[in-house]
Amino acid sequence: MSHFTHLECSRPCGAGPFDAHERHHLCRCGAPLLARYDLDRLRGWQRESLKDRESTLWRYRELLPIFPGETPVSLGEGWTPLLPAKRLGASLGLRALLVKDEGPNPTNSFKARGQSTAVTRARALGATTLSVPTAGNAGCALAAYASAAGLEARVFMPRDVKRAFIAECELYGATVELVDGLITDAGRIAAERGGPLGWYDVSTLKEPYRLEGKKTMAFELAEQLQWRWPDWIVYPTGGGTGLIGMWKGFEELESIGWVPRGRRPRMVSVQADGCAPIVRAFEQGADHAELFPNAHTFADGLRVPKAVGDFLMLRAIRESGGTAIAVTDQQMIEAAQRLGRMEGISAAPEGGAALAALDVLVASGQVRADDVVVLFNTGGALKYLQG
Amino acid sequence: MSHFTHLECSRPCGAGPFDAHERHHLCRCGAPLLARYDLDRLRGWQRESLKDRESTLWRYRELLPIFPGETPVSLGEGWTPLLPAKRLGASLGLRALLVKDEGPNPTNSFKARGQSTAVTRARALGATTLSVPTAGNAGCALAAYASAAGLEARVFMPRDVKRAFIAECELYGATVELVDGLITDAGRIAAERGGPLGWYDVSTLKEPYRLEGKKTMAFELAEQLQWRWPDWIVYPTGGGTGLIGMWKGFEELESIGWVPRGRRPRMVSVQADGCAPIVRAFEQGADHAELFPNAHTFADGLRVPKAVGDFLMLRAIRESGGTAIAVTDQQMIEAAQRLGRMEGISAAPEGGAALAALDVLVASGQVRADDVVVLFNTGGALKYLQG
Repeated sequence: MSHFTHLECSRPCGAGPFDAHERHHLCRCGAPLLARYDLDRLRGWQRESLKDRESTLWRYRELLPIFPGETPVSLGEGWTPLLPAKRLGASLGLRALLVKDEGPNPTNSFKARGQSTAVTRARALGATTLSVPTAGNAGCALAAYASAAGLEARVFMPRDVKRAFIAECELYGATVELVDGLITDAGRIAAERGGPLGWYDVSTLKEPYRLEGKKTMAFELAEQLQWRWPDWIVYPTGGGTGLIGMWKGFEELESIGWVPRGRRPRMVSVQADGCAPIVRAFEQGADHAELFPNAHTFADGLRVPKAVGDFLMLRAIRESGGTAIAVTDQQMIEAAQRLGRMEGISAAPEGGAALAALDVLVASGQVRADDVVVLFNTGGALKYLQG
Repeated sequence: MSHFTHLECSRPCGAGPFDAHERHHLCRCGAPLLARYDLDRLRGWQRESLKDRESTLWRYRELLPIFPGETPVSLGEGWTPLLPAKRLGASLGLRALLVKDEGPNPTNSFKARGQSTAVTRARALGATTLSVPTAGNAGCALAAYASAAGLEARVFMPRDVKRAFIAECELYGATVELVDGLITDAGRIAAERGGPLGWYDVSTLKEPYRLEGKKTMAFELAEQLQWRWPDWIVYPTGGGTGLIGMWKGFEELESIGWVPRGRRPRMVSVQADGCAPIVRAFEQGADHAELFPNAHTFADGLRVPKAVGDFLMLRAIRESGGTAIAVTDQQMIEAAQRLGRMEGISAAPEGGAALAALDVLVASGQVRADDVVVLFNTGGALKYLQG
């Protein structure tokens, strides 16, 4: 039922195509690999067929990385609500503000999407021990999906991460290793430790399949909005897989004819001013982002000083006519509280950051009263409530 | 589209029917009121119509308390996953163990269901300040839905509740009052405080509409199991609205002809041995439960020493051929961890209690290898992770 065919380098480096029945991480040139599908054949796929589908991201199975005879590792991820935020929208002078609320996912964040697809493939490829460096939520999600798949999980995260992230990983039976430093240091240590032991590395974009789960956010938006894109997507970006994934999702939906070409939303990358490598590179007109020194922010998910997919993020933001905005911790925390008080939405500081960035876009006149705006709340507040 | 008609006493006391366009709490005789629908007309409703519906409990709008022109207060509640727990089932010698996972609801628990319907009606009835005594999660859910509806929430909960419950209520802008004692004391104080001020009391079963949201768990089970009931439903019961609601849901589905009569699942009420009024009453053959003295348990949601709907719970358990089982705190905590380690499911201790009770039923031979068993995990682990 899936039309998954092979892997391809995200750069025109000449290597590949790569056989998806074998383990692959980065391309020889160092760039992420992307899953490819037989899009021509999928032009015959009817949108109406979705009506009978499961209420998870696996409803889009034709465009997900799964081969015949395989079963998804699923805990009910995806198909999250797109909530009309009328009171909040009115307070900003907006007629159509929507919040894509990723909190009601397994493990309380959007990270469940990527780990459902990644662990599905890892199991199919014969992996037994999965490892991940994480700022927090990706580790919780990996732990849960590894458990659901009967595989072992090793999670490497910064020592000063909020305690709930650690406790949740352990709940699923994962082995947690606390690392001095940030996610980048955790990635180095995980690779050093796991390389010789053959652990399967599930780092963001260093394996090709988390992206595939994340791109379903674009599919869901399209379906929930009756196949019309919003004018803006405001999205908090750490590693940026969500933004890159949605951009890939737009392309795939255009290719199979489900949405018209040339009308994609403007993509807004939101970061913390204490860790804003993409914002800095965007403002400097750079193609890649430098490592952001002394990275710090209350939003663990945004504490990513250097992202493998930086060039893909920057390209998507620019091609979309979007922008990149940094907000302070104080702004994101206030904004997260505003989502709770005005709309009853449980927002992580990352979701608050998106709202704080929208404040800026409205104040500057970039977002106008009649624009349709989708704000991503990438996870719930609970893991942040007790410091 | 709804066929909601009126309210009726849950006892044959002779009072009523009651006009659903007016505010009602308990019947004059002190018993809960129940929402009634024009079930005869609903016999023409086709199950196939559900295919196009929203992925929330409002997909069953025909059997929910909403009048023409009204909009549900919704944050995406319900239509939660029914997960096949194969590894856990196999470890118990069961061929078909399923977990209805209520964690991926707004506010991380099944309480979102009841507050969505209750707040929908409260707003329609002109209420402006809503109050609730709670053991924890019901307060969080009320706070979120009140915020979503633009109403004020006053939450009364035991002083020694886990801190995350308090913090989450405050996130949604609710006023939290901590009470010395248990939910029963909180109920007394909330009524004393709010009565003179005209607050709308959303206490379990003291208003008729939380039950209507909870009954959708039965509708979803039926739909997810292709309109066949499981042999057993194992359900953690504090106030018991979920169990009573599902029992009402069975009756309604039978009345409209969507499931055959006489094949309902056996209902197992699970409580903590430190607070087991229903188990005690069940064992004693009593129709009502006495207040359980010195109630204590780690599972805040089970810390309900006296329930308004005790007689309805006991009746449902007995009519179903079910039973009532108490487990220790240690058993429920171990079992919650087992759900995490073996299936990747984030389980509150209440969900763990259900699994611990299933252990007992399997060991005693009451549940057999071929029985289809549905275990309810009523909420996620997050609020319990940090004590």
